[in-house]
Amino acid sequence: MSAESAFIAALRGLATHPAARGLNDDCAVLEIGSETLILTHDVMAEGVHFLAQQDPADVAWKLVASNLSDLAAKGAEPIGVLLGYQLGGDDARFVAGLSEVLAHYNVPLLGGDTISGTGAQVLGLTALGRATHRPVPARSGAQPGDNLWLTGSVGAAMLAFEALKIGSGDSLAYRRPAALLAQGRTLAPLVSAMMDVSDGLLLDARRMAEASDMTIDIDRMAVPIATPEARRDEALRWGDDYQLLVALPADITPPVPAHCIGRVLPRGTAPLLLDGIAPVGTLGYEHR
Amino acid sequence: MSAESAFIAALRGLATHPAARGLNDDCAVLEIGSETLILTHDVMAEGVHFLAQQDPADVAWKLVASNLSDLAAKGAEPIGVLLGYQLGGDDARFVAGLSEVLAHYNVPLLGGDTISGTGAQVLGLTALGRATHRPVPARSGAQPGDNLWLTGSVGAAMLAFEALKIGSGDSLAYRRPAALLAQGRTLAPLVSAMMDVSDGLLLDARRMAEASDMTIDIDRMAVPIATPEARRDEALRWGDDYQLLVALPADITPPVPAHCIGRVLPRGTAPLLLDGIAPVGTLGYEHR
Repeated sequence: MSAESAFIAALRGLATHPAARGLNDDCAVLEIGSETLILTHDVMAEGVHFLAQQDPADVAWKLVASNLSDLAAKGAEPIGVLLGYQLGGDDARFVAGLSEVLAHYNVPLLGGDTISGTGAQVLGLTALGRATHRPVPARSGAQPGDNLWLTGSVGAAMLAFEALKIGSGDSLAYRRPAALLAQGRTLAPLVSAMMDVSDGLLLDARRMAEASDMTIDIDRMAVPIATPEARRDEALRWGDDYQLLVALPADITPPVPAHCIGRVLPRGTAPLLLDGIAPVGTLGYEHR
Repeated sequence: MSAESAFIAALRGLATHPAARGLNDDCAVLEIGSETLILTHDVMAEGVHFLAQQDPADVAWKLVASNLSDLAAKGAEPIGVLLGYQLGGDDARFVAGLSEVLAHYNVPLLGGDTISGTGAQVLGLTALGRATHRPVPARSGAQPGDNLWLTGSVGAAMLAFEALKIGSGDSLAYRRPAALLAQGRTLAPLVSAMMDVSDGLLLDARRMAEASDMTIDIDRMAVPIATPEARRDEALRWGDDYQLLVALPADITPPVPAHCIGRVLPRGTAPLLLDGIAPVGTLGYEHR
């Protein structure tokens, strides 16, 4: 077991409260008074999650949108965010982007902390939301016979990242992802399982399969891709597109645009199949 | 205006929700259903808030205790924490300390994020609590004629930090501060204003005075110090002791151990006086 896996396993031992969902979900789900609160915290580091030369306004956008995407996967309505900000770079551009993204999603800044740092910038955001449907959707819950649906194409962020790196072409999909909050709320009452695809479709589908103790079989050619056909296998493994991945009973057609990309089977030897065969090699981004 | 002050002023412009308290308080205070939720997020950076050579177990302790201290200042009962962790150093020792401090305060880990980083470690923690008394105490609210009380001495963390740096003597007060949760809950129904002293008594007292639009006059010799008398002025400016600072109506004697260290006056020219005279120079740690 790697030091990282050991660390996360040890954390799991501390996360015994039911709200923590064993750290196997995108969010904590906390019953408080008459409400169900949804909580998520994501960290982004310069050099790992964003490029040092990126416009800080885009970094702010992505930090907020990626957290709101976790709320979307719970069908939650955002309440507000807390920001952990390390000064450095063009802080005024960061605030400009933060202002834009919070206005776009109509989410208030509730608090946080601003510090001086010495090294690469590390930024944290906590997002809170309230559940609009109970039970709150989870990664677990997929059932044999369910169909697997994806709300849109994958690979757009990969192409956009390449454009950003070479400084030519359309990089918007990487810089300014969308959090599918309305789609998440519409799907929440219908799904057996739901999550957002942040680390790669194959990796995240395997996580859903493992959390549900099922096998998920994906039809390789059914997955909508934003790339040329020659790059299909890469698109299936690249993250940052923030589509919603849902398992729905076979008799339900999703009421939002979505593509049927596979099905849920009783758990076999492998949690994930691609056209019936367990894929080998990297499935996506781990421990980002 | 410095870039830092400009940044925080710009953030304030985004924090228009009443729960944010204009970013002038230790915590956000959010009404949700029948409960009042208290939220705080603090960040600690290697080389700024802790030494690279410190035991990661102590870093974990302080990260949690300093956030719980913010909850204590609201009279809140902790619900749980979310951790933003950057791998690096002895991660197993960090988990050991995290386990200790969460068990000590009986607070569960609810979620968070673990990332790989490239530079100095930056760690974030979000703590949630529920109010035990409403209205929830604030930094603002101090009234003319109130007495100012402090729950214990200052300067112990300063001596402990010096011991830690030279590797000799008792460094516990710096490494393992206490969050005065029980004291905060007992005081909450009585106080006009309350906050924890994390950045220096004089600086934090001035913040209370400014938030309350009052002047606070501190009796220099009435402040209990843990240092030799010769270092009194330093002790009044050093942080990390996490005592509670409260303004109480003159007819109330606090029901927990505390020292009367001054009084609240109508707002004069200076927000802070020390023996009747506005102190000059540094009052504590800004923008840590």
